Amino acid sequence: MSNGYTGKVLEVNLSDGTIKTVPTDMEIAKKYLGGKGYATYLLYKILKEYEKKGIAPKDINPLGEENVLIFATGPATGVVRFPTPGRYHVMALRSPLTGSVASANSGGKWGPYLKFAGFDAIIIKGKAEEPVYLEVVDGTAELKCAADLWGRTTFDTTKILSGRVGKRCSVACIGPAGENQVLFASIMNDDHRAAGRTGVGAIMGSKNLKAIVVAGDQKVEVAKPDEFKELAKTALEKMRKNPVTGEGLPTYGTAVLVNVINNAGIFPTKNWQTGVNEKADDISGETLAKEYLIRNGACWGCQIGCARITKVETGPFQILYSEGPEYESIWSLGGSTNVTDLAAIIKANHLCDELGMDTISMGSTIAAAMELREKGYIPDEDLEGVDLRFGNAAAMVEMVWRTAYKSGFGKYLALGSKRLAEIYGNPELSMSVKGLELPAYDPRGAKGIGLNYATANRGGCHVTGYTISPEILGLPEKIDPLTTEGKAQWVKAFQDFTCVVNSAVNCLFATFALGAEDYATLLSAVTGWDMSSEDIMKIGERIYNLERVIINKYGFDGKDDTLPKRLLAEPMPEGAAQGQVVDLEKMKEEYYKLRGWVNGVPTEEKLKELEIEL
Amino acid sequence: MSNGYTGKVLEVNLSDGTIKTVPTDMEIAKKYLGGKGYATYLLYKILKEYEKKGIAPKDINPLGEENVLIFATGPATGVVRFPTPGRYHVMALRSPLTGSVASANSGGKWGPYLKFAGFDAIIIKGKAEEPVYLEVVDGTAELKCAADLWGRTTFDTTKILSGRVGKRCSVACIGPAGENQVLFASIMNDDHRAAGRTGVGAIMGSKNLKAIVVAGDQKVEVAKPDEFKELAKTALEKMRKNPVTGEGLPTYGTAVLVNVINNAGIFPTKNWQTGVNEKADDISGETLAKEYLIRNGACWGCQIGCARITKVETGPFQILYSEGPEYESIWSLGGSTNVTDLAAIIKANHLCDELGMDTISMGSTIAAAMELREKGYIPDEDLEGVDLRFGNAAAMVEMVWRTAYKSGFGKYLALGSKRLAEIYGNPELSMSVKGLELPAYDPRGAKGIGLNYATANRGGCHVTGYTISPEILGLPEKIDPLTTEGKAQWVKAFQDFTCVVNSAVNCLFATFALGAEDYATLLSAVTGWDMSSEDIMKIGERIYNLERVIINKYGFDGKDDTLPKRLLAEPMPEGAAQGQVVDLEKMKEEYYKLRGWVNGVPTEEKLKELEIEL
Repeated sequence: MSNGYTGKVLEVNLSDGTIKTVPTDMEIAKKYLGGKGYATYLLYKILKEYEKKGIAPKDINPLGEENVLIFATGPATGVVRFPTPGRYHVMALRSPLTGSVASANSGGKWGPYLKFAGFDAIIIKGKAEEPVYLEVVDGTAELKCAADLWGRTTFDTTKILSGRVGKRCSVACIGPAGENQVLFASIMNDDHRAAGRTGVGAIMGSKNLKAIVVAGDQKVEVAKPDEFKELAKTALEKMRKNPVTGEGLPTYGTAVLVNVINNAGIFPTKNWQTGVNEKADDISGETLAKEYLIRNGACWGCQIGCARITKVETGPFQILYSEGPEYESIWSLGGSTNVTDLAAIIKANHLCDELGMDTISMGSTIAAAMELREKGYIPDEDLEGVDLRFGNAAAMVEMVWRTAYKSGFGKYLALGSKRLAEIYGNPELSMSVKGLELPAYDPRGAKGIGLNYATANRGGCHVTGYTISPEILGLPEKIDPLTTEGKAQWVKAFQDFTCVVNSAVNCLFATFALGAEDYATLLSAVTGWDMSSEDIMKIGERIYNLERVIINKYGFDGKDDTLPKRLLAEPMPEGAAQGQVVDLEKMKEEYYKLRGWVNGVPTEEKLKELEIEL
Repeated sequence: MSNGYTGKVLEVNLSDGTIKTVPTDMEIAKKYLGGKGYATYLLYKILKEYEKKGIAPKDINPLGEENVLIFATGPATGVVRFPTPGRYHVMALRSPLTGSVASANSGGKWGPYLKFAGFDAIIIKGKAEEPVYLEVVDGTAELKCAADLWGRTTFDTTKILSGRVGKRCSVACIGPAGENQVLFASIMNDDHRAAGRTGVGAIMGSKNLKAIVVAGDQKVEVAKPDEFKELAKTALEKMRKNPVTGEGLPTYGTAVLVNVINNAGIFPTKNWQTGVNEKADDISGETLAKEYLIRNGACWGCQIGCARITKVETGPFQILYSEGPEYESIWSLGGSTNVTDLAAIIKANHLCDELGMDTISMGSTIAAAMELREKGYIPDEDLEGVDLRFGNAAAMVEMVWRTAYKSGFGKYLALGSKRLAEIYGNPELSMSVKGLELPAYDPRGAKGIGLNYATANRGGCHVTGYTISPEILGLPEKIDPLTTEGKAQWVKAFQDFTCVVNSAVNCLFATFALGAEDYATLLSAVTGWDMSSEDIMKIGERIYNLERVIINKYGFDGKDDTLPKRLLAEPMPEGAAQGQVVDLEKMKEEYYKLRGWVNGVPTEEKLKELEIEL
């Protein structure tokens, strides 16, 4: 096709081994674009079918045969010169970590390569009896035995499978953590790129699906090549001139945020007991660049290039070649655990990638365990000799491999912070929303992100609506981080817009420089459909609301749109946000009103307005 | 019974779940005592049955259903006041590491507790369909589901199972390494005691048998209590006065040997490239006692108490509570790898215990990998970022957990040094005999131990015939370590006598102070059978020869009674043994003559003389 789509979707039933190709539904694509939007639509349709068959959504076992996993690209993915076109989106009916919808996003080259192989998306149903992997090459797909791959690390698996396909390919796979169904296991592609959050790797593991290899020579054609070329030129110019996409990210990677966020007093430290880390500069992007950087890297077709190729030359955390860590990983494995040895963080991040786990949930769960132990709730005998406490770098690194293999105390960490804190009698020490560990910004000093955390459909997540951009970075404009006023509007707009980006699918980082208008014109030129910025934003809102409809079916509503008690009731003890808590209720009320929701549930009227057919 | 035996043997068939109790055959006990001797007899009988059924010994898959695993005690085990009565012996038809007979020995309290539970031995046949464990309490035995234990560490498993039996018990189990069939996986009991060598843990894993719990109140009665009491008193007095059993071992544990052996120039360093380690004192028993010791420990009923309870207070290898490491472990994980950081060795030893692996094979295989890499045979990409080289403490520790979980490069290490060196094209860099990694004494500077390594039935092993005692320690008398003269006689005598000890079953360390005469009188008083020291030594020789008959059936003969090329051809570069190699052939010829063997095979005449019925 000549509209950014391949026009084909692969449907794989692992239970009976059948594979079929169905056309991409262009009417649905017009309403939901691709990626997250298209996947959300498909999941909703499947849920309805289940309901018809008498299977209640609440009874769906996230690690059962009935869960459905979708890998999806959008019209922007793999399009040469489209801003940051190297990503794909993964969704599933339910996350084993949260019970809410599973949703994660990754870069590298796997997304583009799926389209070059001839498919917009892959739907994975059922469960294979024995370990298998899926090979998708030049428009054909085949399930193959993965007995020899089971147990292998993500790096090993990627290397082995890359050698089997007779052409350049990309591998998305799980590591031991996914096989062992660590509840926050990731899907890794191209070695170090992660569809990290909500345990999509555990779902893949529960289905006995070790990997998906994609390769092909199909080009992604756009509807209006000349117009697109001009628009892309303008967009890329904007990105080059933007301080974040043109300078901060290329120069220091995402880790440039460590000092910025710490200076704003919202760098969660010691499991969110404070927002200021005295040694933040030791683990900053600047230090990473100075001490550990080999060179920069980039996802397929990316014009920013925020990836870091790194190494640790000597010492107990030596590693000769690694990638990252990203800002969120530095924070979770370092800031939250108060481990300010960047070498240890690089090592832990490497192990998370190699064994296939989400760095945010991993570090945050370790940090929760550290607080639980320091407060006397975890007895020493459960730790079998490991002195797990804030700042203990070696213990932090050890807990990473122990978690992947459920070794010793790792069996508890593998459950995530919510279950861990419940087991040890202090659920409030899990810094999570809907069971998903929060990312690296304390909302007591940036109220908008608090509202976003509370209302994000997949749980405590920053990328759903990254209001840190205006609140801290001043993009597209600087707003007061400490006020709650006007934040509902910002959160709604960012959440909707992010749905567009994740359905395009391209990288969220482009939005530091590009707005809805840019996306409207670019996507119109790619698809040939005439879309205004209002149309684009309506698509985003539609996706967000349909996703909300799904999670309502699992029982999530207003009561779950909340924050950990610490953020609502414990004033920030120091720094720029000293004395602050999050006044969530006020923002939530305004937000629900703007959304047309009652107690976290979209009204029929709103759904009708968004042309969502129930 | 009142002769040191319980009189009962448990036979468990995991394939059909049947369990039966059979009487201990007292005629066989008279010929083979118990422990290793009795087990060797049983294995030989099973091999003959297999041959009758048309199953050739060479076709037995060590990890197949057809392998048979035996746990056995002897008349001395669990006898109060018998010298060092806390041990048991494990054997199996074939070792997955060597293809020869599998044989290992362990302390703690499991052996005595098996007898208190009412059994002299347990024979394990077949393979369970799903993970099970065996509970043996007060004369009854039951197979129970181990689904919830599979994947657990040895410490976890021990803790969980100890909590399930309503009385004091002992647990022997495998860890992840045994489950994953690491070829040198150990069986661990009482947390830190290992039946370590020849991969008996992998065999247990292949049978889906996670653990054996033993508990009971039966007392072990002796035939002549008054006589025994007097004899024991005399024996214990000898042990107290002996410099090794009365002072060296109690004060510094087995690690007292580090400086002794290094000073003798036979402390194998850098995968046996030299016998002198400049930093040996950093990892010595003296340093262990000074820096890391919490207190001493002991096996059940032991009068020596060589166990060390240790901890590492700070740093990257911190561990709050551990046991060991023993001399052999310090050497393999430290000396051979040239890692002279005792904290790292303690950590690695702890992980070997927790995950269930033989420390000697583990350290030696890592050392072989280090040499292979330093010489350019292992490409960096196979190591995925780990800088594996001599002296790298962190890399050494990391390779331990990676091996247990077959993670990354660990999948190669899990095969042992012989297969590893073969994979990388340099089989001569595996310092092993018959595939079993050699222990901590370079025979270029102690020729007798070289002959013992070469001729030991289970492969490169020191405890089969520990001539280090006369050659280096001067017990029972000092002999010249560098000469080959007279060594055949010493080796034969030690090998035969060790068979007695391992069939008694008590601890080999008692023999630093006690000789055949002591054993004869003590065992006569226990069993009520009138045995002279000649009788005792004949029993030992009988056992050793029957074991040899078994391994002959697997194809082992004189060609396999050899040493790695390095020891035969590369002169020791420095130290007390500078310029030395092992002139093996001369010793071997004399040894075969003394043994009545031709090319490593016992003559019919010899077998007849020993009353071995084929």
